[in-house]
Amino acid sequence: MAKATLTISSKNYSSWSLRGWLLARFAGLDFDEVIVGPDDASARAEILLLSSSILVPCLRHDGATIWDTLAIGEYLNEAFPDAGLLPADRIQRAHCRSISGEIHSGFTTLRASLPVNLKGHFPGFKVWTRAQADIDRIWAIWRDCLDKSGGPFLFGQRGMADAMYAPVVTRFVTYDVKLEPQLKAYADLVMAMPEMREWIEAAKAEPEEIEELEVEY
Amino acid sequence: MAKATLTISSKNYSSWSLRGWLLARFAGLDFDEVIVGPDDASARAEILLLSSSILVPCLRHDGATIWDTLAIGEYLNEAFPDAGLLPADRIQRAHCRSISGEIHSGFTTLRASLPVNLKGHFPGFKVWTRAQADIDRIWAIWRDCLDKSGGPFLFGQRGMADAMYAPVVTRFVTYDVKLEPQLKAYADLVMAMPEMREWIEAAKAEPEEIEELEVEY
Repeated sequence: MAKATLTISSKNYSSWSLRGWLLARFAGLDFDEVIVGPDDASARAEILLLSSSILVPCLRHDGATIWDTLAIGEYLNEAFPDAGLLPADRIQRAHCRSISGEIHSGFTTLRASLPVNLKGHFPGFKVWTRAQADIDRIWAIWRDCLDKSGGPFLFGQRGMADAMYAPVVTRFVTYDVKLEPQLKAYADLVMAMPEMREWIEAAKAEPEEIEELEVEY
Repeated sequence: MAKATLTISSKNYSSWSLRGWLLARFAGLDFDEVIVGPDDASARAEILLLSSSILVPCLRHDGATIWDTLAIGEYLNEAFPDAGLLPADRIQRAHCRSISGEIHSGFTTLRASLPVNLKGHFPGFKVWTRAQADIDRIWAIWRDCLDKSGGPFLFGQRGMADAMYAPVVTRFVTYDVKLEPQLKAYADLVMAMPEMREWIEAAKAEPEEIEELEVEY
């Protein structure tokens, strides 16, 4: 079997790349990264939110090609069941898939107005009302999960839902969104994961080739 | 066990309601429909594409509450394995999840500029360039699936991917999008499914309470 590859784009800007990469690392997959440059039209489209995930992330593993983030999560959960990407309990699993699906298809205002930018930090950033509604919903989702599971991750141990919401955590850091203690503890835990620190370090070392990019939506 | 319920909104306008309902029917689930009226703020937000799927569709079954369409598909596939919602083959299953995820998170231009409207029919409708790019991608997805599976549905027998793309089929009918023979045969097959005919009949009988709705995006 050829070694698995994961195609991703900018580590600084691409929320989907971060999600797919975390899923692969959580699963314990041995893979090579294939970086699609930001001057590639498809990567640009993805970063500009014009395209969802046609190119990135894309996992190639054992004859399968999977180019959607949730599909990658489900695939890896089947291939590496011991990694516990999804909760073992049927009802918790349904809950995990519901909130993972919700961030996958929704929150477009949050995504457009607080784009992922790991190098950036904007103290006092003014959040638009409609983006705040998205943030309120995310807080409700996290509270519900943490109350039910007891933490420290959304469903106890780290898994798919944490990978799906990791770029939201980085947005809260970048745009100085204040969190109540329970949610702050969760966000801090996500930021402190070794995989997350590794990713952020690589993002900060990324050349500023796309700093002129303006998010349009 | 209490009887399952599926909460949906407008049968004429709500693409997500159609997907969830088809999944439940394909699975053979015995369920009651709970209709959220279009004057309900959440249903309105969903139809206006402001919210993804916070309220609809929402499946309640055997203690589980699942409010995202892909999550409903995965849940039903586990609960009713004999229904074959997902392909049995590992690589086909990864493919099915990839294209289901792609329509779940993407194609925002198509969704906004050709909204689902089962009562409507607009011969000669002019498709905007960017929406045509979405349509081209959908055609490529369908061709690839039908070539690989041999049809007649995307993965041979009807399943999750067909439910996910069913609202696209209805858009092509509503907005008079011309299809090449292979894709036309697939679209005709989807439109002729007994479940689809039942849904469309109900949509056409729906009161015109929300005809003044304008899609904003």
